[in-house]
Amino acid sequence: MAGKVGTRGCKKIRGAQIRDILDSKHNVLFDCDGVIWNGETVVAGAPEVVTLLKQQGKRVFFVTNNCTRPRENYVQKFSRLGFTDVVEEEIFSSAYCSAAYLRDVAKVQGKVFVIGCHGVQKELQDAGVPIVEDVSDGPDVSIYNFPLEPDVKAVLVGYDERFTFMKLAKACCYLKNSDCLFLATDPDPWHPLRGGRITPGSGSLTAALETASSRKATVIGKPSRFMFECIASQFDLDPARSLMIGDRLETDILFGANCGLDTMLTLTGVSTMEEAQQYRDSDASEKKDFVPDYVVETIGDFLQALED
Amino acid sequence: MAGKVGTRGCKKIRGAQIRDILDSKHNVLFDCDGVIWNGETVVAGAPEVVTLLKQQGKRVFFVTNNCTRPRENYVQKFSRLGFTDVVEEEIFSSAYCSAAYLRDVAKVQGKVFVIGCHGVQKELQDAGVPIVEDVSDGPDVSIYNFPLEPDVKAVLVGYDERFTFMKLAKACCYLKNSDCLFLATDPDPWHPLRGGRITPGSGSLTAALETASSRKATVIGKPSRFMFECIASQFDLDPARSLMIGDRLETDILFGANCGLDTMLTLTGVSTMEEAQQYRDSDASEKKDFVPDYVVETIGDFLQALED
Repeated sequence: MAGKVGTRGCKKIRGAQIRDILDSKHNVLFDCDGVIWNGETVVAGAPEVVTLLKQQGKRVFFVTNNCTRPRENYVQKFSRLGFTDVVEEEIFSSAYCSAAYLRDVAKVQGKVFVIGCHGVQKELQDAGVPIVEDVSDGPDVSIYNFPLEPDVKAVLVGYDERFTFMKLAKACCYLKNSDCLFLATDPDPWHPLRGGRITPGSGSLTAALETASSRKATVIGKPSRFMFECIASQFDLDPARSLMIGDRLETDILFGANCGLDTMLTLTGVSTMEEAQQYRDSDASEKKDFVPDYVVETIGDFLQALED
Repeated sequence: MAGKVGTRGCKKIRGAQIRDILDSKHNVLFDCDGVIWNGETVVAGAPEVVTLLKQQGKRVFFVTNNCTRPRENYVQKFSRLGFTDVVEEEIFSSAYCSAAYLRDVAKVQGKVFVIGCHGVQKELQDAGVPIVEDVSDGPDVSIYNFPLEPDVKAVLVGYDERFTFMKLAKACCYLKNSDCLFLATDPDPWHPLRGGRITPGSGSLTAALETASSRKATVIGKPSRFMFECIASQFDLDPARSLMIGDRLETDILFGANCGLDTMLTLTGVSTMEEAQQYRDSDASEKKDFVPDYVVETIGDFLQALED
């Protein structure tokens, strides 16, 4: 087993070193975007790696902060990109885990007011958690007179391209009741788009609501521990035999550290080797959890290691 | 002159004590909402107090973080509520001061992308600062393809009931250019409405954009010093002979402290005597600037003091 001696190593590995680490693990957790695909482009070899890991008896999970799709649409995307053996039960999105949290942990007794897109709404419906119906407001409805539903017991904020001032104002009014829970799917501040553009993330919309309501949201997605607990509650995972693989130091690698997992950075996404080394060499002790144990160029490098 | 000995006193005053303090000052700065009016209800005696102060040769200014109205509409509101002698030049709103900052301090060479309502747009137009035209996007326009104007050199965020995800996404993209300034009219997180409701403030929308852009806004409104500098640039104020009167400890009183003014809390608005005393008795040195020098029940109490 890959034990830890002192600080995390940020160790660049390949070939037999990769095989040794994978041999010591039973559960492999992959982030999705930047790790197994980039948008609609699959990372070369990723489907074969997943299949080989499963053939060697390992359990594979996909842990993503992306809340825009329900699980069933993820299965379609995996299939579309050439993954032949990924099933719904292996996919843990922040939308699915938020619904699980509301149903199983908070045991919310009442409706949920949702700022979020289809993925969030669908997962709540599938989990049997009632939501406030998203109706268009008529021309006479304003921030002064919109109707407030009487039994709203939680506000959940996620990525929402149809976010408006009115939604923010409504959420604010519900949160004035201290019995109303305040959840966010994930803390991602922004996401890269094609052509150098960016789009605001769930964390941006959550910041608006935190400021307006003078409250702090409970964040479900990475780097919070909850997504691991959600998987562990269904699959009985041993952290010491689990490996987290991701492309963002501040979410994926910190998530792994928070959950007591060994961590691996792959360089096919957002973070770079230089950033990882800067965190490693920093004097700030709170940055040490951003340092991965291992670094690979791409998870495609697993292929040779697994086939040897 | 009312000198300061050690920490600020939080001293409740009336009658001759009020007269002595006013006698020592030449300039009186009033916040508006919660001080001279509450919404459309005037604070009893406020119009007469303003008139008497002017008759005694003092200069009176109105300093408000509210950015929704242009100056000319404020004149109408003063008149409607019974103030007979308030002129546009005495009114310093965060919208007016933001326009002055962009024109005179930043000397912005290019257009300004505005998140904000009529008051902000009108003040920029009056100041001759060009803004990006606020056109409705067609059905084919999305975050992936909206046109970006080439010469945007500043983003200004204020209270905006027509705030949308698209506006936020556009502002984000402009702010990716580090030459593009990032301003906010004011930091107010929320505002009270009738019936116990609240509405998100400029500070809430600014927080969303700060998170999405990984940048910090330059905030023009109280408690930042700029609004005082804006008045002083036009009227040559001596801070030692100026008094700031407000109802919010964290904005108005801190603003006065930041500008070296004596400060007075009036109890007709948001903050209470108990909150002021808690700040005074706190061990946290950074809270001392929230403590007013003086406290009055209402500025209506000035009437008797001034008429004696």
